[in-house]
Amino acid sequence: MVKRYLQVISLDDAHSLLSREFSCTPSVLQVPLERAAGRITAGPIFARYSVPEIHLAAMDGIAVVSSETKGASEQHPVILPRAARVNTGNVVPQEFDAVIMIEDVWESGGNYTIRKAAGPWQHVRPAGEDLAESEMVMPSRHRIRPHEIGALATYGITLLDTITVRVGLVPTGSELVPAGTRPAPGQVVESNTVMAKAMLEDAGAACTRYPFVEDQPDLIRDAIKAAVRENDMVIVSAGSSAGTKDFTAEVIAGLGTVLVHGVATKPGKPVIIGSIEGKPVIGLPGYPLSALTIIRELVLPFLKNYGLQVPEPVVIRAGITSALPKEIGSDEFVLCTLGKIGDRWMVSPQSKGAGVQMSAVRANAYIRVPRNSEGYNPGDTVDARLMVPVQDAENALLVTGSHDPVLDYLADILRPAGITLISTHVGSMGGILSLKKDDCHAAPAHLLADDGSYNTVFLKKYLPQIPIDLICVAGRQQGVVSRDGLSFADLPGRAFINRQKGSGTRMLLDYELKRAGISPDTIPGYEREATTHIAVALAVKSGEAEAGLCVYSAAKALRLPFVPVSQERYEIAIRHEHAEDPRVRALISAIRSERFKEILTMLGGYDTSETGTIRTV
Amino acid sequence: MVKRYLQVISLDDAHSLLSREFSCTPSVLQVPLERAAGRITAGPIFARYSVPEIHLAAMDGIAVVSSETKGASEQHPVILPRAARVNTGNVVPQEFDAVIMIEDVWESGGNYTIRKAAGPWQHVRPAGEDLAESEMVMPSRHRIRPHEIGALATYGITLLDTITVRVGLVPTGSELVPAGTRPAPGQVVESNTVMAKAMLEDAGAACTRYPFVEDQPDLIRDAIKAAVRENDMVIVSAGSSAGTKDFTAEVIAGLGTVLVHGVATKPGKPVIIGSIEGKPVIGLPGYPLSALTIIRELVLPFLKNYGLQVPEPVVIRAGITSALPKEIGSDEFVLCTLGKIGDRWMVSPQSKGAGVQMSAVRANAYIRVPRNSEGYNPGDTVDARLMVPVQDAENALLVTGSHDPVLDYLADILRPAGITLISTHVGSMGGILSLKKDDCHAAPAHLLADDGSYNTVFLKKYLPQIPIDLICVAGRQQGVVSRDGLSFADLPGRAFINRQKGSGTRMLLDYELKRAGISPDTIPGYEREATTHIAVALAVKSGEAEAGLCVYSAAKALRLPFVPVSQERYEIAIRHEHAEDPRVRALISAIRSERFKEILTMLGGYDTSETGTIRTV
Repeated sequence: MVKRYLQVISLDDAHSLLSREFSCTPSVLQVPLERAAGRITAGPIFARYSVPEIHLAAMDGIAVVSSETKGASEQHPVILPRAARVNTGNVVPQEFDAVIMIEDVWESGGNYTIRKAAGPWQHVRPAGEDLAESEMVMPSRHRIRPHEIGALATYGITLLDTITVRVGLVPTGSELVPAGTRPAPGQVVESNTVMAKAMLEDAGAACTRYPFVEDQPDLIRDAIKAAVRENDMVIVSAGSSAGTKDFTAEVIAGLGTVLVHGVATKPGKPVIIGSIEGKPVIGLPGYPLSALTIIRELVLPFLKNYGLQVPEPVVIRAGITSALPKEIGSDEFVLCTLGKIGDRWMVSPQSKGAGVQMSAVRANAYIRVPRNSEGYNPGDTVDARLMVPVQDAENALLVTGSHDPVLDYLADILRPAGITLISTHVGSMGGILSLKKDDCHAAPAHLLADDGSYNTVFLKKYLPQIPIDLICVAGRQQGVVSRDGLSFADLPGRAFINRQKGSGTRMLLDYELKRAGISPDTIPGYEREATTHIAVALAVKSGEAEAGLCVYSAAKALRLPFVPVSQERYEIAIRHEHAEDPRVRALISAIRSERFKEILTMLGGYDTSETGTIRTV
Repeated sequence: MVKRYLQVISLDDAHSLLSREFSCTPSVLQVPLERAAGRITAGPIFARYSVPEIHLAAMDGIAVVSSETKGASEQHPVILPRAARVNTGNVVPQEFDAVIMIEDVWESGGNYTIRKAAGPWQHVRPAGEDLAESEMVMPSRHRIRPHEIGALATYGITLLDTITVRVGLVPTGSELVPAGTRPAPGQVVESNTVMAKAMLEDAGAACTRYPFVEDQPDLIRDAIKAAVRENDMVIVSAGSSAGTKDFTAEVIAGLGTVLVHGVATKPGKPVIIGSIEGKPVIGLPGYPLSALTIIRELVLPFLKNYGLQVPEPVVIRAGITSALPKEIGSDEFVLCTLGKIGDRWMVSPQSKGAGVQMSAVRANAYIRVPRNSEGYNPGDTVDARLMVPVQDAENALLVTGSHDPVLDYLADILRPAGITLISTHVGSMGGILSLKKDDCHAAPAHLLADDGSYNTVFLKKYLPQIPIDLICVAGRQQGVVSRDGLSFADLPGRAFINRQKGSGTRMLLDYELKRAGISPDTIPGYEREATTHIAVALAVKSGEAEAGLCVYSAAKALRLPFVPVSQERYEIAIRHEHAEDPRVRALISAIRSERFKEILTMLGGYDTSETGTIRTV
């Protein structure tokens, strides 16, 4: 009943197999010069004519016969028997062999007097100085740089043969709807071939996306046949697993050969490599991050076999902030956030859910854990592969701790200054512990102590020797979110959605439950955890829960009733030693900006009277 | 009579002035998602709906109520009172809160039996797991990476507001013809705005090239006015010097203000910075490499003020192979070839002629010599800024010495293997000396000794202790090139074009003159030097000289008569210690390839009987 993978091979073996099985001849794409930047020449390019074709003046001045200038000096000026006025770029008439700058010439009554002799060919651009007719301008497989477009124009090249790989992208799945259509329950926006097109065309391929194909073997067969006919390579999106509606392997086997079903990568295992009419046909897994991994690790490197130039990611050696356990056998690719704390590069693995496309939006690096590795321990030095320019990673501001939607707005304020705020949601206590390990720049927290104070008690307890600055973001209203306007006293007996352990909101809930004499046992769903305010509000909105505790802005964003419970102090803790770090200073400026106060007011539920004030612990 | 520059300021001051004078608000460009990769968001982007909007199965299996699975084990299987068959991605019906993988389920008569309990929300993708409605997907000024196109599609974003800078490019000059038209004597192909468009659009600008404008102030004025009206910034190509036909500064002054005329850079000094209606108007110098330098060093960095992201070049510390003297006062930018000899990065400055666009095609790096520097001595360590990916520079094969057109064909054979052959033409002796200093990989030479042998005598003399391998490229015919079929005996009294001192061809000439008893004094033009075979042939073709000595292929390329004088041995010398360097090995393979022999035969004038043989010295 359960189909098995035919054969699971390693990623390295998959590359060897692709190189062995396919001849990989690129297609030739003729492009006009103005669209040639970034493309790769199909053959050598030769100069159509010499540049310049004839001797030109390299200065404004007069063309002279150098032998007639001999002996001229300040003491013995020479009146030239003949000369011709020339500007820079003018043709030097054939009888002359040098140019004298106009500043060194005295003219009177049509005669030119000079006080210095000219050497032969002085200030003359000789014919062919730049390039001679028939010379090679650039070889085959040269990637044309933007500035070279000018040189090519000069040499008379207006149309170029460049190489490409024509890739047919076939999206399959009865559940698919196109981007722009809001998916009904059970429908999915087709994004994998959209992403594949962007990634492969960035590397120089020419992609055609074919219409969606329903999950029916006959239809899939027709679509793949057409795509193979019209392209150098075909990628079939999804249907590559071993489920009941996964027909891709069967169809490829019917039209040609399935060489591989399953590559030992994580994510991305359910990949198919097939051959139809000598052309590679790749079955892409359906989960977006699996598809991303297979495109980046299998398909893009394979394009090099056709002559396309795919840049290698820059590798940075960094300390890993948390454990990354792994079983032996698969190459594993983990999206990460990378930044510099002081002088140390630190890298944090993100969650591994293959359906969470935002992980790839938030990540600025990834780690490849080799198949024979058992993973990493915290503090190990690992290779982080950059997904952004080095400068961007150097300017990453790592914010780890309690989540609030305003962090995204701070990111929006900071980005134009070149700083990328990367927020990791681990709750207030998680942030404090990250600060203790010195692996983030800033830790947002709202930890309520038994004495009713915020944050200071915990910082003194967990970071006793370390001077800390606490920057107030805002006084923040927490309250009950529900569909029916429930209040805190209504919670017993109601399906609840809680926050994760260590989050300030959960501690607030426990504090208020205790104060009100309500036992957690009376609240069904107390153990069900979401990791952000908006996730709590969404659980309520979707009907999964009847109530939860969150900030006002989250309830407002989803247009849900909100009954206030308490105002808390939402602060960002930084190590005082990093207070002068330019990223941290920019963060403080952003918090203190008028624009940020306007945003807090617009979002609602924030008291801005102490926004931007700093306490030291 | 000679106009002076109004005010020459440093490059740093020019940048400060640009930042101070202009507010630099970008334009908004709305683009469809499929063209958004590489563009920068104009504002934050929010999710239109949650993803997923409802709980979905994360596995193929059955949806269950987790509390009803309690106690199930191998010993105590549980028959579930209710369950629903779901595939990955299906909606989990609201009554259920967990999914059990199909592999762990036994079905019989419509009943499902399990042997393991399910935790709440196991294998369920909760609503909003990826992103919740109203959450920020990406902030302002985020550069959209190709892989993010997929996530944006999923989140319902099909049209994006991105930022750009509209740049109007105004080419001026009565001598201009468009690319594709062969320029008549005195005409020039307009390439500067073509290049500017490619470079600026690569950085995210949106450029409009305006029609060519004759050198008449009124016409230039009308063109600039229109361009200022329609763009955020205007670049006027040429007319920025202080010559008689340089009207750009005068026109800008009439329409607005000339802030700067002259920036202390080399090349690129005659640049104008003006302001018209609050918009920057840049007067670009006419020489292509001057224009390139100003675009790269002044205009591209200025685009950052508008929010565009212009990557900084990668900097490599390298030893400089030759002196780079410089006067204090200007920032000087020198195109270079960079490569790795063994483990050492070595960088060689190229010739400085601002009209030689091929320099920018051949260069893979450049050096900025700061304005207060007096330049560098050979062996100094300098910052080389890369114009190619690091991998390309690491795979550069530096070939320094005697020039032959076949070196370009070797480059063409090597490029698909990822190796960039960079050839520097310094003549045979120059190559031998470069090999002595160990700052090139390979030195082509054809040095004729008094005993009639080639190369070995000189290598023993100049590199006495160093084991050398000599790879034979070909036996090569040298002969007299002329328009009238002149022979060697005809040379006395004829206008001659010679090769530079230290070149093998010049030594061959001297050897043959001596043998024939002809004195160099009888040959007019003996002191006139060209640096390549093709340059010699071109001087003959253009009428500058009546005869020269060159290889057959050069004469043939320009369709000129050729009378053989002698066959010489054209070899490439390498240090034996580098014989196993992969670049050197690839070079030897290329020389020995069938394809190369075919090329030698096609070009003509080469004897391939010893091609690829190796002698050791």
